[in-house]
Amino acid sequence: MQVRFDDIKHAHTKIKSYIHRTPVLTSRILNSIAGARLFFKCENFQKSGAFKFRGAMNAVLSLSEEDARTGVITHSSGNHAGALALAAKTRNIPAFIVMPENASEVKEAAVRDYGGRIIHCGLTLASREEVADKVLKDSGGTLIHPYNDERIIAGQGTAALELVEEVGTLDAILAPVSGGGLLSGTVLAAKGFDENIRVYGCEPEQADDAYRSFQAGKLIPAESPDSIADGLRASLGDKTFQIIKKEVDGIFLVSERQIIEAMRLIWERMKIIVEPSGAASFAALLLSRPELSGKRIGIILSGGNVDLSSLPF
Amino acid sequence: MQVRFDDIKHAHTKIKSYIHRTPVLTSRILNSIAGARLFFKCENFQKSGAFKFRGAMNAVLSLSEEDARTGVITHSSGNHAGALALAAKTRNIPAFIVMPENASEVKEAAVRDYGGRIIHCGLTLASREEVADKVLKDSGGTLIHPYNDERIIAGQGTAALELVEEVGTLDAILAPVSGGGLLSGTVLAAKGFDENIRVYGCEPEQADDAYRSFQAGKLIPAESPDSIADGLRASLGDKTFQIIKKEVDGIFLVSERQIIEAMRLIWERMKIIVEPSGAASFAALLLSRPELSGKRIGIILSGGNVDLSSLPF
Repeated sequence: MQVRFDDIKHAHTKIKSYIHRTPVLTSRILNSIAGARLFFKCENFQKSGAFKFRGAMNAVLSLSEEDARTGVITHSSGNHAGALALAAKTRNIPAFIVMPENASEVKEAAVRDYGGRIIHCGLTLASREEVADKVLKDSGGTLIHPYNDERIIAGQGTAALELVEEVGTLDAILAPVSGGGLLSGTVLAAKGFDENIRVYGCEPEQADDAYRSFQAGKLIPAESPDSIADGLRASLGDKTFQIIKKEVDGIFLVSERQIIEAMRLIWERMKIIVEPSGAASFAALLLSRPELSGKRIGIILSGGNVDLSSLPF
Repeated sequence: MQVRFDDIKHAHTKIKSYIHRTPVLTSRILNSIAGARLFFKCENFQKSGAFKFRGAMNAVLSLSEEDARTGVITHSSGNHAGALALAAKTRNIPAFIVMPENASEVKEAAVRDYGGRIIHCGLTLASREEVADKVLKDSGGTLIHPYNDERIIAGQGTAALELVEEVGTLDAILAPVSGGGLLSGTVLAAKGFDENIRVYGCEPEQADDAYRSFQAGKLIPAESPDSIADGLRASLGDKTFQIIKKEVDGIFLVSERQIIEAMRLIWERMKIIVEPSGAASFAALLLSRPELSGKRIGIILSGGNVDLSSLPF
């Protein structure tokens, strides 16, 4: 099943009473720094603190009554974990979250606050899959992959849908890319609304699998991704890559320094909290981009979950 | 001249096309922590990063054409300095800002960015007054005191006016208190709208001149105020104290620990940046306040100018 623009519109109808319609903010000073007219879609204000709740809520609401009863399962140490736990709680069904033993206390606390049940696994992929398989069998629940899933992709696309509904068409939209759920949903929503909107992914130089896969035309998983943008370390899945390869106009790489500078500018000038991953799309505009100069550009600020005890400034 | 409710309404009419109508945000989790229904008036999103722009803009627009030509003068090392510089720039008149030699580089940069002319003075009150007097004589400009000024008080009251206009009447409004411009404007606006709204000032224990003056019924200036809330170290003026003494329902003291905890909760849960002074009014709700339990409470988040290089967490 291929995700289409209609799936995103249907997802939006389904989830809109459960999600926050996040604000679109503008900033004269950031416009002047970027040399363009920017429209920031503030998913840092989304429930669970990130866009991830859109996809998770859509996936949870897509389950039949019977499937819903046995709950949902995922493995994640990041924002998808909390988002799925909250989505499951919203439908009053169980959520089993497989997390590595060394997951951060903050992220575990978020899952527990939302009523999710944490099952620890070892640090290897093998251990994670083994534990997840066992939970799947024991519970009879449904696995909800963090991004390589049509329901997730359609849900994530609703952020860009709301953005263009609110401000009208744009010359370009920039979104961070990690596993590709947000970027693939964004490009389907944007081009469905207006095929002339260019869509770019923004990725850390130090976790550049999407850039290399896009250039090569085939999936090249990251080998040792390492970035302060902890939400951007995953590698594309086959479903997200098929969409990205076909539809996206380019991938911009950003340095660690640019990510931190972008995050600081957004905090200082817009007075809002975004996480490093959330700042990556604005970071791409700290370099000169002649093709975007003076244009109307949507920026997806993907999330705001940051550990205040370990800030990069 | 006494400030009346009508002065605040007139000020609002005068300044409203120049200021941001800042959003009123709510947060279920902070409601649950405070045990009340909170409405946060987000002056951290105001131009210049603080409510101070309201009063400064009102004062600048109140000048006759002739007085305006020679510009405005103030002495301030804080948010009033940047706000007055921006207000003057908005009317295209000069602003002379007397700042101590040791003022923070961040604050000086803000003044310069807004086109203000900085004149340095020594660290003593005598030096500050001497330098300000000289600038007054040389320029022929008008002194705009940071808070002990009717035009400033009326301007600051417009934040509470917008708040009650937007969410309807409230059981109480909490505002930080330092020199008292915000608190006196807030109480006149609130009681002018509905005399049953209780209004409380919130002040650091370590800069408690408003608390002590309010208890004693006479002005008792702070001797050695010292708080992380650098915007709350000033002492009341005679004009602000007259209003506060007569109209305000009480002053809550908050500890340094409560200010930092309040600031952290707002950053983490609401994903917005407030400065320590801005968090003081929410800090007052981290103690049990039976008289406010379950009530509809307005919270003035006064500003968001914080030096990210020296955070308390």
